[in-house]
Amino acid sequence: MLKLFYAPGSCALASHIALEEAGADYTTHHIDTGAGDQRKPEYLSINPKGRVPVLATDRGILTENPAILAFVAQSFPKAKLAPLDDPFAFAEVQSFNAYLCATVHVAHAHRMRGYRWADAPAAIEEMKRKVPETVGACFDLIERGMFKGPWVMGEAYSICDPYLFTIAEWLEADGVDPTRFPKVHDHRRRMAERPAVKRALQQEGRG
Amino acid sequence: MLKLFYAPGSCALASHIALEEAGADYTTHHIDTGAGDQRKPEYLSINPKGRVPVLATDRGILTENPAILAFVAQSFPKAKLAPLDDPFAFAEVQSFNAYLCATVHVAHAHRMRGYRWADAPAAIEEMKRKVPETVGACFDLIERGMFKGPWVMGEAYSICDPYLFTIAEWLEADGVDPTRFPKVHDHRRRMAERPAVKRALQQEGRG
Repeated sequence: MLKLFYAPGSCALASHIALEEAGADYTTHHIDTGAGDQRKPEYLSINPKGRVPVLATDRGILTENPAILAFVAQSFPKAKLAPLDDPFAFAEVQSFNAYLCATVHVAHAHRMRGYRWADAPAAIEEMKRKVPETVGACFDLIERGMFKGPWVMGEAYSICDPYLFTIAEWLEADGVDPTRFPKVHDHRRRMAERPAVKRALQQEGRG
Repeated sequence: MLKLFYAPGSCALASHIALEEAGADYTTHHIDTGAGDQRKPEYLSINPKGRVPVLATDRGILTENPAILAFVAQSFPKAKLAPLDDPFAFAEVQSFNAYLCATVHVAHAHRMRGYRWADAPAAIEEMKRKVPETVGACFDLIERGMFKGPWVMGEAYSICDPYLFTIAEWLEADGVDPTRFPKVHDHRRRMAERPAVKRALQQEGRG
């Protein structure tokens, strides 16, 4: 049995939606980051990184959205969530998700988690100040060069779509006007209408 | 024909070593980041991100080490660079590489590329100051919890090994004593002896 450890509003939503799209049999465990659950010994013994998501499986735990998303796609091939038989197309999927993970999410994290990379309050404020610019530049690149349409990878819905949706949901709070990116904005609207997305949001108390 | 765009001393070395381990037929193109080649229109037309590595293939370009590494493993299955028939084990590989890409490389990047996330010189200095602590904490986690030995994923050499080697090569410059991490340190020594690693370094003018 699979068990997803998530925090509402976090990037774990991407993996959560993918599990719903796959029709997976799974349970969820709410990590209350406001109460510091992710830093408590009980959770650190599961995931020493102290982050979400974690997908607990019969063989052990998995962390990092790009890895969990690919695992879900490979474990539930009938859901057709990735081009599993085409190494180039699969690499394009992984490349997009790596960009979200290592560049877009990181740009966003400098708004509320600047303490990860500096101690001085003034430096943390400086990082926060630049977030609209850096996150905006990432979404410019996605809108102009990466997003194929109607889904991220073109005609086929894939594990890129819940991940983009999850991070695009943060745009307003990051100080970026989402209407600057018409394709991503329309994608977000269409994603929000999908039953799998509605179920995941509802389970996270955000539906 | 595959073509790798790399810069010496960059994370592109991970993909470079993997191509050598795979016995791939490929050429290389040196991007001189000192001369700003990565920001020139010619390169931006290939990779709008303005970063390395890029792997150009007959079907288009691929970016992001985790995606390129998995592509190499899947395209050259005889080299056995990843557990391709085991979604859980493959996800463990992808999870490790995502951690290197999105957390360890990002921690390192705050030493020389702080301008990505802040403008004020004082803030950029503050980020630089914290790098030994953040990079050290990442390698603590790798040493204590992730590295299985003798290779990253245990008995089988995989695409995690060249990537870890590449980033561990930056430790001294990041102000971290590599001998704090005996398993990673020994891994680095053994990696440096591999013919594929020697060939990649030599091609990058570092052999």
